[in-house]
Amino acid sequence: MSNRHLLSLENVSREELRSVLELAREVAAGSFERPLSGKTVFLAFFEPSTRTAASFELAARRAGADVISISTRGSSLEKGESLVDTVVTLDRLGADVLVVRHGAAGAAALAARHTGAAVINAGDGRGQHPTQALLDLYALSAALGGFGGLAGRKAAIIGDILHSRVARSVIPAFRAAGMEVALVAPPTLLPQEPVWEAAVLESVDAALEWGAEVLYTLRLQRERMAGALIPSVQEYAARYGVQRRHLLPGVRVMHPGPVNRGVEIAGDVVLDEASLIPDQVAAGIHVRAAVLMQALGVGLEVAA
Amino acid sequence: MSNRHLLSLENVSREELRSVLELAREVAAGSFERPLSGKTVFLAFFEPSTRTAASFELAARRAGADVISISTRGSSLEKGESLVDTVVTLDRLGADVLVVRHGAAGAAALAARHTGAAVINAGDGRGQHPTQALLDLYALSAALGGFGGLAGRKAAIIGDILHSRVARSVIPAFRAAGMEVALVAPPTLLPQEPVWEAAVLESVDAALEWGAEVLYTLRLQRERMAGALIPSVQEYAARYGVQRRHLLPGVRVMHPGPVNRGVEIAGDVVLDEASLIPDQVAAGIHVRAAVLMQALGVGLEVAA
Amino acid sequence: MSNRHLLSLENVSREELRSVLELAREVAAGSFERPLSGKTVFLAFFEPSTRTAASFELAARRAGADVISISTRGSSLEKGESLVDTVVTLDRLGADVLVVRHGAAGAAALAARHTGAAVINAGDGRGQHPTQALLDLYALSAALGGFGGLAGRKAAIIGDILHSRVARSVIPAFRAAGMEVALVAPPTLLPQEPVWEAAVLESVDAALEWGAEVLYTLRLQRERMAGALIPSVQEYAARYGVQRRHLLPGVRVMHPGPVNRGVEIAGDVVLDEASLIPDQVAAGIHVRAAVLMQALGVGLEVAA
Repeated sequence: MSNRHLLSLENVSREELRSVLELAREVAAGSFERPLSGKTVFLAFFEPSTRTAASFELAARRAGADVISISTRGSSLEKGESLVDTVVTLDRLGADVLVVRHGAAGAAALAARHTGAAVINAGDGRGQHPTQALLDLYALSAALGGFGGLAGRKAAIIGDILHSRVARSVIPAFRAAGMEVALVAPPTLLPQEPVWEAAVLESVDAALEWGAEVLYTLRLQRERMAGALIPSVQEYAARYGVQRRHLLPGVRVMHPGPVNRGVEIAGDVVLDEASLIPDQVAAGIHVRAAVLMQALGVGLEVAA
Repeated sequence: MSNRHLLSLENVSREELRSVLELAREVAAGSFERPLSGKTVFLAFFEPSTRTAASFELAARRAGADVISISTRGSSLEKGESLVDTVVTLDRLGADVLVVRHGAAGAAALAARHTGAAVINAGDGRGQHPTQALLDLYALSAALGGFGGLAGRKAAIIGDILHSRVARSVIPAFRAAGMEVALVAPPTLLPQEPVWEAAVLESVDAALEWGAEVLYTLRLQRERMAGALIPSVQEYAARYGVQRRHLLPGVRVMHPGPVNRGVEIAGDVVLDEASLIPDQVAAGIHVRAAVLMQALGVGLEVAA
Repeated sequence: MSNRHLLSLENVSREELRSVLELAREVAAGSFERPLSGKTVFLAFFEPSTRTAASFELAARRAGADVISISTRGSSLEKGESLVDTVVTLDRLGADVLVVRHGAAGAAALAARHTGAAVINAGDGRGQHPTQALLDLYALSAALGGFGGLAGRKAAIIGDILHSRVARSVIPAFRAAGMEVALVAPPTLLPQEPVWEAAVLESVDAALEWGAEVLYTLRLQRERMAGALIPSVQEYAARYGVQRRHLLPGVRVMHPGPVNRGVEIAGDVVLDEASLIPDQVAAGIHVRAAVLMQALGVGLEVAA
């Protein structure tokens, strides 16, 4: 987390995590009355998104900000220079915060170099998705008795780790919170070079033997199945899908959404009480409001 | 009308109609100051819509609600399970009301089973479109001296009744208001089984002979013309299109919009003073605000 | 500028320009507190737009208006009659202002004949784009010491004048402000008939020899390059593109955006301090707020 921007969690510290999650709890508790009143937030989504966009929009609106959504899907924007020109335009339109989603890794960092506004990365290609990891930690710490309850917990990150920006934010964030992480994926969906020093396990069953209390499943992109990276959906689900029999006492299931039911998670498990998926969604509003406030230096005295 | 949801008008009572239309009149009269302040309304439109979406958005905003539009056109949402997951997501984002439009009949009812929010059906496949029928009754009763003035009036429902969710809401609603209904359509655009015990007439001329005072025309989907369900647009317009010569004294022309000019209604009739089409549009704002208020139990003491 | 509508600047007077720019300066100075509170502004964009739509939306929201965006991209709207029906619908939904962008010249004027709302032309085919020219004058007069500082200045309008609605607004507006205008374009991108009595120059170099202080470049539509209207992008850029060597002391570069970098303007010139492009964008908010206020007769006593 660089000063005002929120681009990556790769080197986030435990203290930074604690601080933003504490602020999010204050938001949830209603401690702030329209803290972003008079501020302008642009949502610049160069990739389609329903949930993340709605979550940011609601968080910003409830916090009192003026929110303008720029959806560039279908427009003829080229990459690189055009992104910069768009960012400069939004800057001149008076943006205080730019929330950027883009198909290219590094897009948010590029944007941050060309604007005086604070930039929040809402997902950049195979890069990072920091607010997702923050809301995951919020939901998980609420389930485990607070931020301190995260230390020493074991989490299995399951599925398409190779292509996942969520994994790239979740793994360092979970570790900074004191958690232990193992990877569960077929070799074709793991990075060739070991990026994280972490155990690689071959199935959800193996993860439970290892002692995983958190089964964090990643979305499988169906177009990659067609590419024969995995033998078949059935075989994938049998080995890497979370089934009811995996719900040992104390085990929590998470997913960034949207779930392919019957693939990453069995249909009857998605909304089971062991599932934190609804809590993750609800956490998004509070966490994103906190992130916006932190980016603008608002309400920090409370969390300090 | 089930308790808080508004899914269907199939079994609506006269008293329920009277109550919501009365509330809409209070809305139009300015009796409420931002009655939905602090409430969050999600517009989840899984089918394209310009008018209905704008009408709901404006109604909700003017009533003081936070409004978030989720347009899923072009996204890769599958049917069934995905709808449920989206509904659960919006529920967890803090929705007080979900306004749902979807291409599958029963979608709104399915949504209502998976959320604590009130669900308003804004059109579900060939199912129902209840707010359309309510605004039709609002506009019609305003033209006829009040809700009591509807009783005993004769309305001809004209056109593609087979595929029309509007017809499925309008017919029972008109009847609950005490009106008499006849159907005017080619056999290929009528349900095979008689759904409603109603006279079937063969042309607009026949409807006027029957004594129709209301000519309620339905939109013809051009893609169905290609399917040879009707011989030609010209032939259709000659028999089922409303022409200037049909505008006998006291006759009113209605249409849920958008009109295919020269097909369902002659171009010079659409905005004639016999046409209630502009009144229908204007009624939509007040009626939808009333529906939202009723769904949330707001302002009911006034209408009681 | 007809009374309340803003459709064209073809016959705008110096006094009308001075008045709206003065109002925009008052807006920028914060002289008004939500002047459009209680007003409803519809943005009806029948053509894709990111910048202009965002600029209008932000201007209207900050001025306190209820803003509803109707994007009809991808919908099956036919031309002519359908536009009228949409306008009538928005009128009945309670629009106070309709901001219209459409692919057909004359669309905004057509809309204005069918609504009681004030119509602002946000670009109509090859017709007019008046708010663009007004914000250009705002940015330029700010750079030149005020509106009075425009008189006698020489501006070269460079590029695809034939297809440009921006040119059709900018040329009469610059002249009404007392500026002298020359055209710089290949013969294939100039109107066949001389529309404006103006010198035609053959390159940016020639424009500087003529004494141009303002290099106003127009966007080149890439699809027209394919049509062989110009020999090649390289040749175009060499003759009509603004390069660093053209930045003589006092010369200002303008562009309505988005720029094709390396074509109309060299990449390193776009954000040079000689470039007014960022100022043009920033001016848009204030000028469009002023235009909306003028359309509704709000705040005029200040500017009088």
